[in-house]
Amino acid sequence: MLKPEIRDPQGEAIMGAARRLGFTDVRSVRQGKRFEIEIDDGQDAEARTAELAAELLANPVIEEFALSRP
Amino acid sequence: MLKPEIRDPQGEAIMGAARRLGFTDVRSVRQGKRFEIEIDDGQDAEARTAELAAELLANPVIEEFALSRP
Repeated sequence: MLKPEIRDPQGEAIMGAARRLGFTDVRSVRQGKRFEIEIDDGQDAEARTAELAAELLANPVIEEFALSRP
Repeated sequence: MLKPEIRDPQGEAIMGAARRLGFTDVRSVRQGKRFEIEIDDGQDAEARTAELAAELLANPVIEEFALSRP
């Protein structure tokens, strides 16, 4: 996801569209990416996945990421 | 996320890049979208959010979605 202090014009456009469609109770929308990654199991699998996210998937200047297990 | 039976060329490209970067333990990558939505609280807030996802955010022909609370 974009860091909270970074403006998200796409999310704002979606919020506008939602309100025009009648979803007037929507207060904010922010859009980001989600990756589902299968990685070989091992004691460092979670650390490897974090490394992959930090090096390849996220732009650390404007984005933050979180890991979750299925 | 794309439905499991739909090919995800972008995820496949990311997997290739990851392996070339040395993440040879990555078995698959699939890319989708994530939305963080603030909606007025109410007994139907979750149902409204599902309606928003189904009508505006997801393409039901090729995508599936899941809701989670913060």
